[in-house]
Amino acid sequence: MITEEVLKDIFKPNNLKWRTAITKVEPNRLLTRGHLQEDLIGNISFGEMVYLLVKGNLPSKKEAKMLEAVLVSFCDHGVTPPSTQSTRLMASAGSPMHACMAGGLLAFGKNHAGAIEESMRFLQEGIQRTISDMDINGVAQNMVDEFLKKGQKIPGFGHRYHDEDPRAPRLLEVAQENDCLGRHCELAHAIEDLLYENKGIRMNIDGANAGILSDLGFDWRLGSGMFMIGRLPGLMAHAHEEISRETPFRKIFQAEEIYYDGKEGEL
Amino acid sequence: MITEEVLKDIFKPNNLKWRTAITKVEPNRLLTRGHLQEDLIGNISFGEMVYLLVKGNLPSKKEAKMLEAVLVSFCDHGVTPPSTQSTRLMASAGSPMHACMAGGLLAFGKNHAGAIEESMRFLQEGIQRTISDMDINGVAQNMVDEFLKKGQKIPGFGHRYHDEDPRAPRLLEVAQENDCLGRHCELAHAIEDLLYENKGIRMNIDGANAGILSDLGFDWRLGSGMFMIGRLPGLMAHAHEEISRETPFRKIFQAEEIYYDGKEGEL
Amino acid sequence: MITEEVLKDIFKPNNLKWRTAITKVEPNRLLTRGHLQEDLIGNISFGEMVYLLVKGNLPSKKEAKMLEAVLVSFCDHGVTPPSTQSTRLMASAGSPMHACMAGGLLAFGKNHAGAIEESMRFLQEGIQRTISDMDINGVAQNMVDEFLKKGQKIPGFGHRYHDEDPRAPRLLEVAQENDCLGRHCELAHAIEDLLYENKGIRMNIDGANAGILSDLGFDWRLGSGMFMIGRLPGLMAHAHEEISRETPFRKIFQAEEIYYDGKEGEL
Amino acid sequence: MITEEVLKDIFKPNNLKWRTAITKVEPNRLLTRGHLQEDLIGNISFGEMVYLLVKGNLPSKKEAKMLEAVLVSFCDHGVTPPSTQSTRLMASAGSPMHACMAGGLLAFGKNHAGAIEESMRFLQEGIQRTISDMDINGVAQNMVDEFLKKGQKIPGFGHRYHDEDPRAPRLLEVAQENDCLGRHCELAHAIEDLLYENKGIRMNIDGANAGILSDLGFDWRLGSGMFMIGRLPGLMAHAHEEISRETPFRKIFQAEEIYYDGKEGEL
Repeated sequence: MITEEVLKDIFKPNNLKWRTAITKVEPNRLLTRGHLQEDLIGNISFGEMVYLLVKGNLPSKKEAKMLEAVLVSFCDHGVTPPSTQSTRLMASAGSPMHACMAGGLLAFGKNHAGAIEESMRFLQEGIQRTISDMDINGVAQNMVDEFLKKGQKIPGFGHRYHDEDPRAPRLLEVAQENDCLGRHCELAHAIEDLLYENKGIRMNIDGANAGILSDLGFDWRLGSGMFMIGRLPGLMAHAHEEISRETPFRKIFQAEEIYYDGKEGEL
Repeated sequence: MITEEVLKDIFKPNNLKWRTAITKVEPNRLLTRGHLQEDLIGNISFGEMVYLLVKGNLPSKKEAKMLEAVLVSFCDHGVTPPSTQSTRLMASAGSPMHACMAGGLLAFGKNHAGAIEESMRFLQEGIQRTISDMDINGVAQNMVDEFLKKGQKIPGFGHRYHDEDPRAPRLLEVAQENDCLGRHCELAHAIEDLLYENKGIRMNIDGANAGILSDLGFDWRLGSGMFMIGRLPGLMAHAHEEISRETPFRKIFQAEEIYYDGKEGEL
Repeated sequence: MITEEVLKDIFKPNNLKWRTAITKVEPNRLLTRGHLQEDLIGNISFGEMVYLLVKGNLPSKKEAKMLEAVLVSFCDHGVTPPSTQSTRLMASAGSPMHACMAGGLLAFGKNHAGAIEESMRFLQEGIQRTISDMDINGVAQNMVDEFLKKGQKIPGFGHRYHDEDPRAPRLLEVAQENDCLGRHCELAHAIEDLLYENKGIRMNIDGANAGILSDLGFDWRLGSGMFMIGRLPGLMAHAHEEISRETPFRKIFQAEEIYYDGKEGEL
Repeated sequence: MITEEVLKDIFKPNNLKWRTAITKVEPNRLLTRGHLQEDLIGNISFGEMVYLLVKGNLPSKKEAKMLEAVLVSFCDHGVTPPSTQSTRLMASAGSPMHACMAGGLLAFGKNHAGAIEESMRFLQEGIQRTISDMDINGVAQNMVDEFLKKGQKIPGFGHRYHDEDPRAPRLLEVAQENDCLGRHCELAHAIEDLLYENKGIRMNIDGANAGILSDLGFDWRLGSGMFMIGRLPGLMAHAHEEISRETPFRKIFQAEEIYYDGKEGEL
């Protein structure tokens, strides 16, 4: 006999579009990773929320403090990054706030914000190598040699504006204070020692955060997403500043700053 | 005589592309709103950073706790919002993480996340009205009357999933604990009383956050940006979940769920 | 008895997510606006396809030629527009092509590309006014007076680079050749006459295309979308040029071009 | 002596931000790839414009007809693709048209539209191999063997909705009519013969367009950009249809279609 249960059984699979373990939505009840949202609001920090959403459980208080520092460190780099410039160009063009903010994030390519992801992957692969037989210093030496031989830049080291990025040592200091220095940071340190000796190159913010986020157990695929979470308030502040203080649709470049080197009139 | 000063004077104005009061970038020195970034990292919360970036000064500890609660409250609403669905569709299509997250934010239109901005504008205009002669209850009564006469929905009240949005009372409770209840929240309460009596409609999360953010002194134009900052970690978590657990490019809809009602073959 | 029909009747409504009159998708059969796609490919132009998709029927050959000219006219404006600059910044940052192209489109705000939409709305409202009692010249005079009194710019007239935008007269010439000049273009001409006499201001590309697209029967809400369709190839060409010829992540601005006018160190 | 020329010489390099060979912008004069825009408008098709922008010269009339057919073939695939669904979700959320269209393009990931790029790369690498010693059939056999051994899908063959994609043979027919069948299409045909014999799999639209665009001389890096140019009108038509016919912010999914499999309340 076709009972209600039979029907449900037949039709449910076709109806299920989405499966999620993040939040359960019921009338007047929102359960995120097993916690009622009203129990989270006012009781956990933003860093704890990020950790909970991604990893499914709450961090320790020290891990939470660490992640909050990481997010704060991404806040802003003035008008120098292409993401910030794009956001301001969009704001000047009169695009709405949500499009300006989303648009800025689209300038997070492999050369900008991508470095943290590459650095995390690099460090996580390095630590994998130590499992077999080598110690961290040996792995560091091998990895540096491989990159130098190929003439490539090691992601997370060196910066186009800073030779001593002030954010990197501070982040590692916070990591130490909060017992968050693990094997990935150790590897990053060992690499920095070799690079500084050979090339005068230091760890940058991406290298420091890559080590810390890896030690906190985050998948390298989340690296640039973490950067985006930390940077979004900066993009909003810049869009708001552009709109508040500048002329709409201003000519940021003068015509004389553009050089045409194409064909000259087939007339 | 053409001195160096004269030259600088001649050429500087043409060279200045960008003006900002947010962050000064110098080699090895990053100054955000007057604070060295290394002094901020590890010492302030993410909520304090957001406040500092936008408003130019640090909030009180209580205001900081309040803003952090507001950001946490935006975290996630499962797979029900169009923003989350868009992010997951993009992740399924194999778009990179930064594009999935940016893309989700583009679904924050006037019907979704726009409500908080509308609600902030509504409350801020209401408080402007009280400056002339009326008290808050009088203004509330007038505003509700105007909307009901026009048959419009008052932004920040009522929710398509919840008749008693559990986040709204909790946010107001946190506001009370942190002495952050001001005149905008008072107005929101007065409106809720009238709407509940007449229509059985309660304040939702947008209304509560609109009152609180307004009382914290934020321009209504920043309302949906604040929502985006709070929701971005949720979008990242969903993109990551989609990629980690589901088949790439899965058919979320079956062909049978699409109904074609156009022309049938002019052959 | 629960028959198959009963079941279909019960469950179908819940399953229908999408309704569309644009394209019917069946295995090995794609029917767009009533035409098999294999009958369209190679037989109609891109302009005809755009018209068909949006309006549901094919244009006349002359209308098709006109629309193709409109799309061609949007092609490129060098590196001056914020959309093109954003696309190139994203390409330089190493964002993938689809994100660079989408990102450029996000710089199409109310001040850039928005003008065509405003101009279409303006002309369509103007023609509405002629229905009651006034002739086109009377309406033009009234509309110009209203804008001048408010000190506002009339959308579609004047350009920040060109005082005689060479694209506008050419577009109107093509419109005449193809019998596509209607009442909206007539109104645009009448307004230009008044503005040129009073202010020396001429119709720009947005004004010309606004008149033509309105005379072709397009809703003003599609104006900036048409601009986007026409401009997207230009954005792709610029992204490709940036990647092909320039250094990745180049510093398009020197630090000296950024002026910081915020607080100086609260140390 | 410091003359004006000396000064220009000193300062020009710092001022040059952008270099482009695409369009020269001067007051009242727009020169694109050597042609005045007023000479292009009304005289060339959209396909010719796309070719000119990207390649720097105009195509032959037959190549132009071919490219126009390629662009038309990308027009629309109903509501089945994630890009179209995303655009409609954004439109339903009330995001503005330009954001809905840009947002849809962000769903063009490696699994959707990426196939054409992969297919172009695959065919272009294949033709490179024939330069050394092998004939096309030999290369086809080797490439198919390599993919089958690795258990991978060959990009451009097979479709999730169609086993005989009606667009592919029609495109190749148009290519033949316009003398545009070259070695890349020949290789694609040879691969299809092998795949059809072994697996019953046929060339899809991506494979056909990959062969044709490669034979027209386009870099594989432009493949998904071409798809985007062709699809953008379809996205606009869907956004417009959503707004015109559906309720704003409609619940496309019912709550019952979402399955929560996470933690159940740690209360």
